[in-house]
Amino acid sequence: MKSYHYTFISLLLLAMACQDSPKDDVRDLAPTQEQTQVIFHKSHEPLKASAPFSDIVEVGGTYYLSGQIGMDHSTRTLVEGGIEAETRQTLENIKAVLAQHELQMRDVVKALVVLDDIDNFAAFNEIYQVYFPHKPARTTFAAAHLARGAKIEIEVVAVRR
Amino acid sequence: MKSYHYTFISLLLLAMACQDSPKDDVRDLAPTQEQTQVIFHKSHEPLKASAPFSDIVEVGGTYYLSGQIGMDHSTRTLVEGGIEAETRQTLENIKAVLAQHELQMRDVVKALVVLDDIDNFAAFNEIYQVYFPHKPARTTFAAAHLARGAKIEIEVVAVRR
Amino acid sequence: MKSYHYTFISLLLLAMACQDSPKDDVRDLAPTQEQTQVIFHKSHEPLKASAPFSDIVEVGGTYYLSGQIGMDHSTRTLVEGGIEAETRQTLENIKAVLAQHELQMRDVVKALVVLDDIDNFAAFNEIYQVYFPHKPARTTFAAAHLARGAKIEIEVVAVRR
Repeated sequence: MKSYHYTFISLLLLAMACQDSPKDDVRDLAPTQEQTQVIFHKSHEPLKASAPFSDIVEVGGTYYLSGQIGMDHSTRTLVEGGIEAETRQTLENIKAVLAQHELQMRDVVKALVVLDDIDNFAAFNEIYQVYFPHKPARTTFAAAHLARGAKIEIEVVAVRR
Repeated sequence: MKSYHYTFISLLLLAMACQDSPKDDVRDLAPTQEQTQVIFHKSHEPLKASAPFSDIVEVGGTYYLSGQIGMDHSTRTLVEGGIEAETRQTLENIKAVLAQHELQMRDVVKALVVLDDIDNFAAFNEIYQVYFPHKPARTTFAAAHLARGAKIEIEVVAVRR
Repeated sequence: MKSYHYTFISLLLLAMACQDSPKDDVRDLAPTQEQTQVIFHKSHEPLKASAPFSDIVEVGGTYYLSGQIGMDHSTRTLVEGGIEAETRQTLENIKAVLAQHELQMRDVVKALVVLDDIDNFAAFNEIYQVYFPHKPARTTFAAAHLARGAKIEIEVVAVRR
């Protein structure tokens, strides 16, 4: 066998290897496979370490945040001042969680807003718009009661771009 | 050095290049990179231009819709006729938003249904099934109150196929 | 032309072929394309065949589950024993749906918990933690009423890894 015979056979094998790689990529990258990175992040708030939920769960480029209420996490008490104060604190809590992952409010794509009194709709809405001028998709309603007597709870989904 | 020595070295280098490409793909395609397209679409309803939420937010091939109620958006008033009329209008509103993006009701994969009275469950359910015979995943409950006195609000997630 | 000339040309062509494959992958895998597999799975519970929703909808590697309540699906009645029994049954129902798709509770990334009485928060929470020690993101509130008089409903999103 001459040298270019070896070359030809090598090239054939190499071509087969190259042909295979797209298939491998599909398998590796398809969301049904190992490739989707899921991380249940620990809270940056020391007092939330024992909470039975993560502040934020990373799934590929999508981030699911737990519902936040108007709680000052350094003391674990609701802020005083009614719906305006609680809405502001809730949104600041979301911003703080996002910031831990180099995400911003503008990366929020979807929000679920749960009030405990529909009459607080206008008050919450005014503050909300300042934090989310880019207009994530949103659903809002009033529940019967929120945990810890909160007046508002907001859950968001963010996406890294 | 003979010609096939060059060939061998070339093949080695090429093989390394081929080996590298899957890694590049991962980097390019991973959702943590620039690749995920996020679009906060403007509403097709002129009177909704000032709403603090987008009717629909596009994230790659996933579309998050805001909760819809049984509102006639040309007049911004709830339709009359109770739960049946509102359910129908709500679903028509969803269909209209999807149609703006060449999506259909069959592309809806998940629905959150919020009633204001659990006794309306059967009436809503009968109409709902006609619009979603392909059976998206669903969660339903009755809240205390919905915005604008609506009897039903439906939020969906759609996926382009 | 000598043998290594053929080799050189072959290598060039091969290199071009290798260069092309990443582009093909991007086109095939982009979420805006045909590639996302969406499956509305039939329930494994014979008595749920007529339900107007799927227990679970598969979207690529993401699985949207319908809200589950503490129902024994073999008899289609709520289990007796109050919030503890219903919470346990609800979570077992979720586990059973996941198991049909070779998924586990640890694959749940996000939960929405709807109670019918916020005073049941502590009781539900204690059992919940046993099933989800890995801490999915979570939002919890009390609605006015749940379907079929249930005391708890839990909706989850799972991701295959």
